Amino acid sequence: MRVTVNRKAHFNAAHRLYNNEWTDARNAEIFGKCANPNFHGHNYELIVSVTGEIHPETGFVMDMKILKNLIRNEIEDQFDHKNLNEEVLEFKTLNPTAENISVVIWNKLRLKIDSKLDLSITLYETPRNFVTYCGV
Amino acid sequence: MRVTVNRKAHFNAAHRLYNNEWTDARNAEIFGKCANPNFHGHNYELIVSVTGEIHPETGFVMDMKILKNLIRNEIEDQFDHKNLNEEVLEFKTLNPTAENISVVIWNKLRLKIDSKLDLSITLYETPRNFVTYCGV
Amino acid sequence: MRVTVNRKAHFNAAHRLYNNEWTDARNAEIFGKCANPNFHGHNYELIVSVTGEIHPETGFVMDMKILKNLIRNEIEDQFDHKNLNEEVLEFKTLNPTAENISVVIWNKLRLKIDSKLDLSITLYETPRNFVTYCGV
Amino acid sequence: MRVTVNRKAHFNAAHRLYNNEWTDARNAEIFGKCANPNFHGHNYELIVSVTGEIHPETGFVMDMKILKNLIRNEIEDQFDHKNLNEEVLEFKTLNPTAENISVVIWNKLRLKIDSKLDLSITLYETPRNFVTYCGV
Amino acid sequence: MRVTVNRKAHFNAAHRLYNNEWTDARNAEIFGKCANPNFHGHNYELIVSVTGEIHPETGFVMDMKILKNLIRNEIEDQFDHKNLNEEVLEFKTLNPTAENISVVIWNKLRLKIDSKLDLSITLYETPRNFVTYCGV
Amino acid sequence: MRVTVNRKAHFNAAHRLYNNEWTDARNAEIFGKCANPNFHGHNYELIVSVTGEIHPETGFVMDMKILKNLIRNEIEDQFDHKNLNEEVLEFKTLNPTAENISVVIWNKLRLKIDSKLDLSITLYETPRNFVTYCGV
Repeated sequence: MRVTVNRKAHFNAAHRLYNNEWTDARNAEIFGKCANPNFHGHNYELIVSVTGEIHPETGFVMDMKILKNLIRNEIEDQFDHKNLNEEVLEFKTLNPTAENISVVIWNKLRLKIDSKLDLSITLYETPRNFVTYCGV
Repeated sequence: MRVTVNRKAHFNAAHRLYNNEWTDARNAEIFGKCANPNFHGHNYELIVSVTGEIHPETGFVMDMKILKNLIRNEIEDQFDHKNLNEEVLEFKTLNPTAENISVVIWNKLRLKIDSKLDLSITLYETPRNFVTYCGV
Repeated sequence: MRVTVNRKAHFNAAHRLYNNEWTDARNAEIFGKCANPNFHGHNYELIVSVTGEIHPETGFVMDMKILKNLIRNEIEDQFDHKNLNEEVLEFKTLNPTAENISVVIWNKLRLKIDSKLDLSITLYETPRNFVTYCGV
Repeated sequence: MRVTVNRKAHFNAAHRLYNNEWTDARNAEIFGKCANPNFHGHNYELIVSVTGEIHPETGFVMDMKILKNLIRNEIEDQFDHKNLNEEVLEFKTLNPTAENISVVIWNKLRLKIDSKLDLSITLYETPRNFVTYCGV
Repeated sequence: MRVTVNRKAHFNAAHRLYNNEWTDARNAEIFGKCANPNFHGHNYELIVSVTGEIHPETGFVMDMKILKNLIRNEIEDQFDHKNLNEEVLEFKTLNPTAENISVVIWNKLRLKIDSKLDLSITLYETPRNFVTYCGV
Repeated sequence: MRVTVNRKAHFNAAHRLYNNEWTDARNAEIFGKCANPNFHGHNYELIVSVTGEIHPETGFVMDMKILKNLIRNEIEDQFDHKNLNEEVLEFKTLNPTAENISVVIWNKLRLKIDSKLDLSITLYETPRNFVTYCGV
C-alpha cells in the first residue's frame, strides 16, 4: 500500500543553453534565442514526489516539514536567484536544459532521502514546458 | 487500448493531526501546529482517475455524469463542511493525514466502480501539498 | 504615476459561520452547513495590493521583502493553522465570513503600511469564492 | 536514464456527442445535453509528453521547438476553430468524446515522432474533466 | 465600508462570430476562423462580482448560496451546452463576441440583484482572452 | 457602456536589480540576492487590458488578433529571451523592477493603441509577485 506525497517549491534563475564543445555558431543554430550569451531566465516551479508505505504511527509517508526543508537546503538555496551556467558547479560542463536540471535535482535529493522511498521530480521551466524524471 | 478519465471535485473540511495512542506532548512534538486541538482546515481538491477500455458504442471509459454523482454521494456529501476527526467514522481512530484520507477515499470509491476499471486518487490538501494513491 | 504591487500569501484555518446573538436554530437556518458546530476549514489565499509612486532610487513602490515579512508577522503567524472563531480575538464577537476576515486583515495591515500608500485586500476562501476590500 | 518532456498546446472547437448508429432518442438518453444537435464547445488544453534518453550533445530528449511546431501542424491547425463532428474526417464516424479525441491525437502524433520515444497525451476537455492516453 | 464578493461559474457553448447584416465574405474577412459557419466553442469561465455594505447580522454582502443559485438559473441553465447563435434569443441579432456576451449576462443578473449592490462581470472566453463589464 | 478586453502574453528574461548610481555594496544591501551581478530570471506573464466602447458592427472593443500581434511585435519580440539590463535600451539607466518594466511596457503600447481606448498593464514577475499600472 504505497502512496506518493508531492511538495511544490520554486526558484528563479538565469541560464543559457550552451554546449561548450561546440562553436558559438553551432550553439546559435541548434539552440536559437535560448543560446543568447547574455542569458535569459525562468521561474522554475518544482514538484518533488516521494513514494512509500504510510508509517502506521504518523500516517505520513514522509514528514512534509522535513521534505520542505530538504528542498530549501539542497535546491532552493543553491539555485534561487542564481545564474545556473555561471554559479552552479554541475552546469559548468553540463548544458542546463530542463532535462539536465531535473537529473541534477534528482541526484541531489536522492542522496538525502531514505532509499526505501521512490523519488520523482517534475520541473516546470515555463507554465507551458515541463519535464519529469524518476531516476530510471 | 486503455484510457484514463479524470474528474475533479472538492470539499472543505476541518481536521487536526493526532495519534490518539500518543500523549498530547508527543502529538505536539511530531505534528507541530497541525496538532492544534482547536483544529484548522483545508479546501481539499480531489482528482479521481479511472482507467479502462473505451466502450465502442459510447466512446466512454465511464460516463462522467455517473462518476460525478458517485463522487458527490460517496465523498463530497460525507466530507464537505465536516470536521474529519469528529464527524467522519474512519478518522475516529485513524489520523486524517492527506495520505490516510486518500486511502479512505480510494476504498470508498473502489466498492462502487466496476472492478475491470483501475482507480487512482489525487488529493490536494493545499495547492502546494498533494498525494496520490492507486491501491497497490 | 501610481503603480500597484501585489503579493500572494496563504494560511489554512478552521472556522464556522455563527452569530452569537442568534439561536442555534437561526444560525443553522441562515448559514446551513457553514454553521456546523464542529467547524470546517479552508486554505485561504491572500493577495495584498499596495499602490503608490515608484521611488526613483529603488524603482520600488514598496520593497516586496518588507511586505512579505509584514504579511507573515501580522497575518500568517496570527491565522495559520488556527481556529478563527476560537483563537483569533477579533472573531470572538465577529462572524468570520470572508467579508469580515478581509476587513480585519485590512485593518491590521493598514496600521503598518505608510499612509501615502493605498491598500487593498483580496481573500480567496475557496478557488470559487473570493472577496475584495479596499477600505472605503 | 529516461526523462519525459511535456509541451502544452490548445485548440477551441465545437462538438456534440453522437453515435450515428443510434436513434436520436437513444443519443439524447445516453448523452443528455452533450447530444444537443446544435453543438456546444470547449477550449481543449493539450499536453503532449515524450519520453526518451537525453541526447548527450544537446541535453534534449526532443527539441521543444520541433515538438511545438509538430503539434501546431498536426493538431492545432486541424482542430482549432473547427466543428469536430462536421469538419474533422476521423469524427465523421467516431463519436468525439474526450477519450476518442485523445486516441486520434495520439495516432496522428505517433506517426511523426521517432519510435524510440514513448508518447503520451493528456487532453483537458474542461478544467474539471480530462483524459490521458499512452497508446497501450 | 463596501466589500466586493466574487463567485466563479462556468458554461460550455458553441458560437461563431457573425454580423448578419454583412456578406459572408465580409464576415470571413473581419472575423477570420472565428466566422466558421460550422461553429467552434469555448469553456466560458464567469466571475460575478457584487459590491455593497456588509450586513451587520450575517457578515455577508450577499449570501453566496443565493448568488450561486441565481447564476445557475439565469446564466448556466440558459447558456450551458448551447449554441449561442442558434439557441440564445439575444444572439439571434447580436454578434456573440465575449464583449457582447458579458453585457447580456450583466443585464440578466442586474434585474435580479438588489439595486443597492453594484455588479461587475468578468468572462473568460479562453484562459488567454477575457473581458470585464461593470454596466457603465 | 465601456467594456475591458484583456489579453495574456509572456516572455522569459534575465535581469538584476541595480541602481548604477549606487556602489555595489549599496546595491547588495538594498536589493539582496536580486542584485546578483551574474543575473537571475523570470517567466514574465503579461496581461494587457484595453477599455472602450463596443463597436456596434463588430461587437469588439478591439480586435484581439490585432492586440495579440501588437503585443508580440512591441513587447515579446523585444523582451523575450533577453537580458533586460544588457539588451533593452530603456533599462540601461532604469532599474528593471517589475514596477519599472510595467511602465516601460505601458509606454510602448500606449503609442500604438487608439487614444480613445484606456490601457492598463498587469505584469506577473512570479506567480506570487505582480504589478498593475494604468498610466495615471
